Amino acid sequence: MSAEPINDLSRLCVHTITTKPWPIEVAAEQFAKAGVGGITVWRDALANRNIAQTGQLLRDHNLSVVSLCRGGFFPHTDAAGRQAAIDDNRRALDEAAELGAPHVVLVCGAAPGQPLTESRKQIQDGIAALLPHAEAVGVKLAIEPLHPMYADNRSAINTLAQANDMAEELASTHVGVAVDVYHLWWDPTLEAEIARCGRNGHLYAFHICDWKTPTLDFLNDRGLMGEGCIDIRQIRSWVEATGFTDFNEVEIFSNRYWSEDQAQFLEKIKHAYLNHS
Amino acid sequence: MSAEPINDLSRLCVHTITTKPWPIEVAAEQFAKAGVGGITVWRDALANRNIAQTGQLLRDHNLSVVSLCRGGFFPHTDAAGRQAAIDDNRRALDEAAELGAPHVVLVCGAAPGQPLTESRKQIQDGIAALLPHAEAVGVKLAIEPLHPMYADNRSAINTLAQANDMAEELASTHVGVAVDVYHLWWDPTLEAEIARCGRNGHLYAFHICDWKTPTLDFLNDRGLMGEGCIDIRQIRSWVEATGFTDFNEVEIFSNRYWSEDQAQFLEKIKHAYLNHS
Repeated sequence: MSAEPINDLSRLCVHTITTKPWPIEVAAEQFAKAGVGGITVWRDALANRNIAQTGQLLRDHNLSVVSLCRGGFFPHTDAAGRQAAIDDNRRALDEAAELGAPHVVLVCGAAPGQPLTESRKQIQDGIAALLPHAEAVGVKLAIEPLHPMYADNRSAINTLAQANDMAEELASTHVGVAVDVYHLWWDPTLEAEIARCGRNGHLYAFHICDWKTPTLDFLNDRGLMGEGCIDIRQIRSWVEATGFTDFNEVEIFSNRYWSEDQAQFLEKIKHAYLNHS
Repeated sequence: MSAEPINDLSRLCVHTITTKPWPIEVAAEQFAKAGVGGITVWRDALANRNIAQTGQLLRDHNLSVVSLCRGGFFPHTDAAGRQAAIDDNRRALDEAAELGAPHVVLVCGAAPGQPLTESRKQIQDGIAALLPHAEAVGVKLAIEPLHPMYADNRSAINTLAQANDMAEELASTHVGVAVDVYHLWWDPTLEAEIARCGRNGHLYAFHICDWKTPTLDFLNDRGLMGEGCIDIRQIRSWVEATGFTDFNEVEIFSNRYWSEDQAQFLEKIKHAYLNHS
């Protein structure tokens, strides 16, 4: 089974970090001109801005505000660090509400100085502590499992099964998951776990890019769709089989692409999206 | 639960690649002098040697020959490539028999140009094709799951659950698994899957090293035990709970350590083994 080809850009969302050299105002203008339908905003792009006005600016460009990236990083070996993380996530929820983003994506964190089991408990406790505020401001939290190569210090949640388990245990209308092909493509249980979060109403976001061979950097060498070995169309078919009709979000960290002309890069994104997603 | 501390070097095995700058004859002499109990031989260390005589040399130094590394790399997009891989694995089995190694460790391979499901099928078919020869020469095959960051081109087998599934499906007295903490430490199902392969008599080998934060290279920046975030002692406790009494094999790929004096590095290995394994 494979998904239908994509014929238009209405469900294309681009993350501000994908075109990192552009300030958000330039990104908004360029995305709109290119026909992109949505934008996911990274918090650094909001620095020194009025957040509500920036959200209005995005909507004035007919861009849907898809997500705010990112909260998380709950685990710390000391209680003060854990409390600071919860406070920061509360601010992220406020920022998402001001911006008009329906959810905050969580890169959950990990502390290399403690067992993964302890980090996982701290993540779940941290999210639980945020739930009253999430409900109060009407913003949801999306647990994003990260590739196991980030288990040391970026996320102790490394499979969609773990994220689904946690979302089910938290049992809140305001907690779900984000599926990113880069982190999860290798997992033999992926199709079943996508179906599972779809059934539960927990599938909040779908991120795409590609895994290049060779990959030269742990963080910033992601590929454009079609440049690597991920069968994005097949994974998209699993996502859409759940009834998901939200955006396909292009999230690429790439020293190579960030050094290029960003307008030309955006054209490449459109081409890759239409032909390899 | 944690394992008992290690008080002697009798179950310490070092891979020839760990001290790559040393020719195998030097490694044998140095390992023996240091009190190391076993050696796992990488095939490149046997180049231009009489293999049977080299095996005898190792035993003359009171070194147990623990494994031959490595066979595998079964998946290819063309049939000729797949046949060449099977032929090469047959030679690896012959070399292990000549050397006196009880098993060949399999890095199973992956072809980025085809789906992981197809690569996994080719791996299973490749191992099945080898079984008559493995039985004939009396050498076993150990499926080693590799970290998901190697799923593009090194191994489509990325969890111990997958390796266990495959070993069970092949249902041979000559197929089991190798557990390497570097590849598997992040997996929340690891304890259960180690117990499973132990129950089935499929646990053939146990490899140790550590995951450093940050890790600077995808291949050659592994840490000495204690330098990273892996709770090796806990994983060893799970391995030993199955009744495993074979060697703890130190397998470190490290540009940093390979550039050091290897005798000093071997002393560091002994210290790390006794204090952090």
